[in-house]
Amino acid sequence: MSGDDDVPLILTWDDGNSGLLGEDDPDQADGNGVGNYDNINNVSIPGPSDSRAQSSLRHSWEMNYQEAAIYLQEGENNDKFYTHPRSALALSAYLFVHNHLFYLMELLTGVLLMILSLAEAPAVPSLRLDVYVHATLELFALVMVAFELCMKLRWLGFHTFIRHKRTMVKTCVLFIQFTEAIVVLVRQTSHLRVTRALRPIFLVDCRYCGAVRRNLRQIFQSLPSFIDILLLLLFFMIIFAILGFCLFSTNPADPYFNTLENSIVSLFVLLTTANFPDVMMPAYARNRCSCVFFIVYLSIELYFIMNLLLAVVFDTFNGVEKVKFKSLLLHKRSAMRHAFQLLVSRQRPDGVSLKQFDGLLRFYRPRMSARDRFLTFKALNQSGTTMLSLEDFYKIYEVMGLKWRARRSGEYWFDDLPHTAFLIFKGINLVVKSKAFQYVMYIVVAVNGVWILVETNMLNSKPVCVCVCVFYGVEVLLKITGLGPVAYFSSGWNLFDFSVTVFAFLGLIALAFDMEPFYFIVVLRPLQLLRLFKIKQRYRNVLDTMFELFPRMASLGLTLIIFYYSFAIVGMEFFADVIYPNCCNTSTVADSYRQVNVTIGNRTVLEEGYYYLNNFNNILNSFGSLNVVFILQEGVTSQTSHWSRLYFMTFYIVTMVVMTIIVAFILDAFVFRMNYSRKNRESLDDPEDEKGIVMEAEVLQDEALQTLDLYRHTLAGTNLSSLQEMCVTMERNRHSSLVFLGRRSRTKSDLSMKMYQEEIQVCYEMM
Amino acid sequence: MSGDDDVPLILTWDDGNSGLLGEDDPDQADGNGVGNYDNINNVSIPGPSDSRAQSSLRHSWEMNYQEAAIYLQEGENNDKFYTHPRSALALSAYLFVHNHLFYLMELLTGVLLMILSLAEAPAVPSLRLDVYVHATLELFALVMVAFELCMKLRWLGFHTFIRHKRTMVKTCVLFIQFTEAIVVLVRQTSHLRVTRALRPIFLVDCRYCGAVRRNLRQIFQSLPSFIDILLLLLFFMIIFAILGFCLFSTNPADPYFNTLENSIVSLFVLLTTANFPDVMMPAYARNRCSCVFFIVYLSIELYFIMNLLLAVVFDTFNGVEKVKFKSLLLHKRSAMRHAFQLLVSRQRPDGVSLKQFDGLLRFYRPRMSARDRFLTFKALNQSGTTMLSLEDFYKIYEVMGLKWRARRSGEYWFDDLPHTAFLIFKGINLVVKSKAFQYVMYIVVAVNGVWILVETNMLNSKPVCVCVCVFYGVEVLLKITGLGPVAYFSSGWNLFDFSVTVFAFLGLIALAFDMEPFYFIVVLRPLQLLRLFKIKQRYRNVLDTMFELFPRMASLGLTLIIFYYSFAIVGMEFFADVIYPNCCNTSTVADSYRQVNVTIGNRTVLEEGYYYLNNFNNILNSFGSLNVVFILQEGVTSQTSHWSRLYFMTFYIVTMVVMTIIVAFILDAFVFRMNYSRKNRESLDDPEDEKGIVMEAEVLQDEALQTLDLYRHTLAGTNLSSLQEMCVTMERNRHSSLVFLGRRSRTKSDLSMKMYQEEIQVCYEMM
Repeated sequence: MSGDDDVPLILTWDDGNSGLLGEDDPDQADGNGVGNYDNINNVSIPGPSDSRAQSSLRHSWEMNYQEAAIYLQEGENNDKFYTHPRSALALSAYLFVHNHLFYLMELLTGVLLMILSLAEAPAVPSLRLDVYVHATLELFALVMVAFELCMKLRWLGFHTFIRHKRTMVKTCVLFIQFTEAIVVLVRQTSHLRVTRALRPIFLVDCRYCGAVRRNLRQIFQSLPSFIDILLLLLFFMIIFAILGFCLFSTNPADPYFNTLENSIVSLFVLLTTANFPDVMMPAYARNRCSCVFFIVYLSIELYFIMNLLLAVVFDTFNGVEKVKFKSLLLHKRSAMRHAFQLLVSRQRPDGVSLKQFDGLLRFYRPRMSARDRFLTFKALNQSGTTMLSLEDFYKIYEVMGLKWRARRSGEYWFDDLPHTAFLIFKGINLVVKSKAFQYVMYIVVAVNGVWILVETNMLNSKPVCVCVCVFYGVEVLLKITGLGPVAYFSSGWNLFDFSVTVFAFLGLIALAFDMEPFYFIVVLRPLQLLRLFKIKQRYRNVLDTMFELFPRMASLGLTLIIFYYSFAIVGMEFFADVIYPNCCNTSTVADSYRQVNVTIGNRTVLEEGYYYLNNFNNILNSFGSLNVVFILQEGVTSQTSHWSRLYFMTFYIVTMVVMTIIVAFILDAFVFRMNYSRKNRESLDDPEDEKGIVMEAEVLQDEALQTLDLYRHTLAGTNLSSLQEMCVTMERNRHSSLVFLGRRSRTKSDLSMKMYQEEIQVCYEMM
Repeated sequence: MSGDDDVPLILTWDDGNSGLLGEDDPDQADGNGVGNYDNINNVSIPGPSDSRAQSSLRHSWEMNYQEAAIYLQEGENNDKFYTHPRSALALSAYLFVHNHLFYLMELLTGVLLMILSLAEAPAVPSLRLDVYVHATLELFALVMVAFELCMKLRWLGFHTFIRHKRTMVKTCVLFIQFTEAIVVLVRQTSHLRVTRALRPIFLVDCRYCGAVRRNLRQIFQSLPSFIDILLLLLFFMIIFAILGFCLFSTNPADPYFNTLENSIVSLFVLLTTANFPDVMMPAYARNRCSCVFFIVYLSIELYFIMNLLLAVVFDTFNGVEKVKFKSLLLHKRSAMRHAFQLLVSRQRPDGVSLKQFDGLLRFYRPRMSARDRFLTFKALNQSGTTMLSLEDFYKIYEVMGLKWRARRSGEYWFDDLPHTAFLIFKGINLVVKSKAFQYVMYIVVAVNGVWILVETNMLNSKPVCVCVCVFYGVEVLLKITGLGPVAYFSSGWNLFDFSVTVFAFLGLIALAFDMEPFYFIVVLRPLQLLRLFKIKQRYRNVLDTMFELFPRMASLGLTLIIFYYSFAIVGMEFFADVIYPNCCNTSTVADSYRQVNVTIGNRTVLEEGYYYLNNFNNILNSFGSLNVVFILQEGVTSQTSHWSRLYFMTFYIVTMVVMTIIVAFILDAFVFRMNYSRKNRESLDDPEDEKGIVMEAEVLQDEALQTLDLYRHTLAGTNLSSLQEMCVTMERNRHSSLVFLGRRSRTKSDLSMKMYQEEIQVCYEMM
């Protein structure tokens, strides 16, 4: 292959050349950042005959590969280009910061800081640590954070660093926490440390929590419109509180409206329907017409304005989602363009050769084998020429995730076995794939389901359990042998079947040996019944969507937990040891906190309200407590001041915001999915499509040998075994060519691409 | 004007000609119903010279007008064309059935049948009637219904009648009810009459309840997908119930999971969070990890599948709404085409002259004055020729609702007053319209709001109340005089201000004379504060949408009430007199039904659980009781059998369906509105546009006189005063022309037209 003496069109990180982007325009993410071609003329380009110059040329190419890989990474992670490293120094810091070891360190520091709350007073009894131990641990973690920040400073440069809001906030919080940790260490006792509620910031900022950051951004984006409607909600609440106070305060038997404050609180709690219908009964007992008041209030607030909140968030969500997807696409595209410019040579400025492409991938995907790099190039290279055009290169993100495998000549995994075995396996395969087998299994599952219900009611279980388990086991074995392990485990449903069956067997063993703690495994058995829902397309859709949503839901859950954490810390600082059995005998919720011994006949029974279990005595309890916010509110208020209600109401509103966003998100995801499946009805029903994205690349023998040669020439010392193996295979089987298939599962982004096809095209054209 | 001797293109309801549509194709709603031109040649057309023939011609025109009017009516009401009257006999029945007196009769019969439940045993004590009285009343109402059905039979013909599902169901129910009423009358005592739950059918079937019927249809349409997801919900519930039973039944202190049935019921109630966190506490007290069970259950069921239910309904809703709007438009269009064909003459088959158009309107809108009929024609007649083309005629529904008024030469209502008065009023007008005045009023309202809060807390009120009331009164007077009463009252906000102010004054009077029952008027005062929300565009949008949604919400509320009614009847039949104070001392909800005298010190206090007020002793109580469904469920179950749970669960699921639809509807409406206001940002902000749809028609003096002449000639004896007045006005003011403005408020349909413009155009072109 040619191009050994090609000179890069753009030289990067050379002395005197401050990277690809000018120092002074940090937000050049819009695509005009590649414009400084004029620099090239100022850079002295070594002559091809000089050997030192040759090695220098190779060095500049390597530098270019690295920067191109960084661009692709930035495009993938949606990092803005103004944080792009602009000098060799920044580059080394960038490389230090951007690797999984560092990410892991960030994550562990963040987690360590958060779990410290378990050990700090008021601590969980079994985890209590001495003050100097946990304060030292905290100082250690904070020093780690400081170190991370220093590295970031080196990478970003002072100028960008102080303009990066998130980092600045982190720095400030770090400073405060540091001071406080030292104060604790000096005084040897914890003071009122509400600032601990800010600790999640360190966790949120780490690379692995990008999804949580995205959620938080989304929450803040929908906040203005949310607050507007919230004000309307509160306004109606206050108007109704005044009305309620005027109407019902004359009734001495009504504790809910006897003061204006109680009136507001009652109506606030009524929003959650937690105190309904109790709040209505005293007024209702006096005058039947008073239920009109409550019906009107609930209709306006709960059914109208609360839905309005949802509608507003849903609407913001809907709009933002599309815009974000588009801007992400555009960002990726400009990242690819940047990378492309770095890979072309002066001699051929509009094509990337295999050599350069391979160089890029060595930096971008260090783990990728030489064969896969070559196949990726082939997959991109649609035109069949030796170079990748910019249009070809634009597809690079789509082909990066593909797993390559040679297309098998035969259909089944047992093709190479002797004839008798082949026939047996073929038979099993046919049986397993037949409709009849499926329906028999459905019937077994259904019967099993009915049986579980009956047996749970009767309470004698073992025989059927064993027999059904064996049945399931045989099914799993048949399927694995019939389809081949690879094909079997590539389906999510089969994985599910497999794990439930394994659990069922574990449960059987546990039952046989009477191991009490593993009893829960036995009760997982009814999950088998979930298979029945595979029958109908709609359920398959729903369950698939559920699985697709899972990562996003997890990140939303994490976001919620972070809010909970902050509130739990604040609650602990203010309300620790406020709640105990029989604490609130003067309040309206006295019953819930009661713990008394009652003698019935000659037996003493402990009569419990249980709610004293929900307290703020340590962080685990606080987490649990925040779920029963309104009864707790009454208890705490009766023990402390009325202002503590503010805490609970704020908490409720924050939870409401996050919950509304979760609901809007689920709604949006499902509506999207339904629209998608309506638009592409055939493709979703098509089992082929369920396997995800498949791409083909055909390799000729000559080509393969040539490539091997090229690689040997340029990359002496690297591992070429995968390429050699490919060549050997071709040689052995006497194929003149070999077809490889690349597969990956479909992501949300692929669906969105298909949905918004036309709009995206318009976008590109406007670019 | 010409055209006296025009012969209709199509003759209708003549002997031997069975109407416009062939007898044998009932669903010709798609526009090819006008195809039977060949009939015309068989009909003998009278010569113009013959006077008897002349009158016969006039008669056929009148018949055509009437049928065209019926077509327009059918298009407006979305009645299918296969119920179109096809003979003179059917016509008379149709006319008898389609008028407000008959509708009112239908409505009253339906309402009478429903309110009879108040008086039938178990009756509301004060309304109890003897058996023979209420049975006779019921028989009377049923006879009325039978009479209505007979009229319908005559109009529809036997063939169509038995194929009309709704009518057939009604007939069957009527038959059953009739038999039962006679049995009651004979036995002189009520038996178990669960069929009374079917009574709402008579109400739902009447013309005025079309919106309720639409809602029911919508509910049935989204039912299949709803049930799919509901099954998933129930499935997970049962799996978790089995899990919960296995895990927690070993705990003797846990009453929620001690049997499989209790386990299912507990988890069902947990869906409403009505028993949360009580259901968790016994398990939680024993093992803190058990909260995982509840968290997982709630996440899957409440946050995931319940939202999925909403998403599915929302999606169906979204799709159905658009399709329905389109099919409605197409139906209207084909109705207009039918009408048009009936109005054109053989001589000029593609235009409708004023005379024919006027004839149509005399039947279609009998109350419309001759002037308005003429103006409507002018408004439609965009081309300026003497005939309306089909394209012009297609706009007829848009111009029908317009209220016509001559455009005033001056700007203000006080233009004609003497100069001094004019200046004064002009001054007031300027003041009232100024920003400063508005903001002063906002400040007053805000201050008033703060004051109300403070004074409610302090409990001494009168002086400020009077002063603020006077202030508001002055404002209202100033605005009325400044803007003129007509302009003032045409704004919804002003109407709101006015009524609140009037109420405030009434309240003052009530307060002055210490009239206790009117006290509630005083407490309506805080509603004034709603005015503050006018400041921000978003709130205006929200509140406008709220008002727009109101009719639809009312119909949804009515739908819900109808379901409540049926369930209340069933509940009464089975559970009457089951609940009384201290009834359920053996159940878990004993506290709620307790009513005991407790002696504290030397005072005797009645300690009440109040829930015994929620019983099924009469229909009013039943209505109230259904709101507290789950506590009631426990109470009733403890008194009767376990099967009564089925009733309560069914009720809850039905309510859930209706509620989900209400939520989806609100969501849809708001998202629609937000999309609309995003698409037409300028037009919604534009105050001109807020006034609704405005159309202009310019009338020349010659034209007016000519028309008057024409009307005098053709319509001797009808009231032409409006036309004469118009001519006189022109004469007096010596204007050669007069411009009239037609106004109407914007409806949802106008918004939809604007939103779906392009799709509708495509629709029309495909027609």
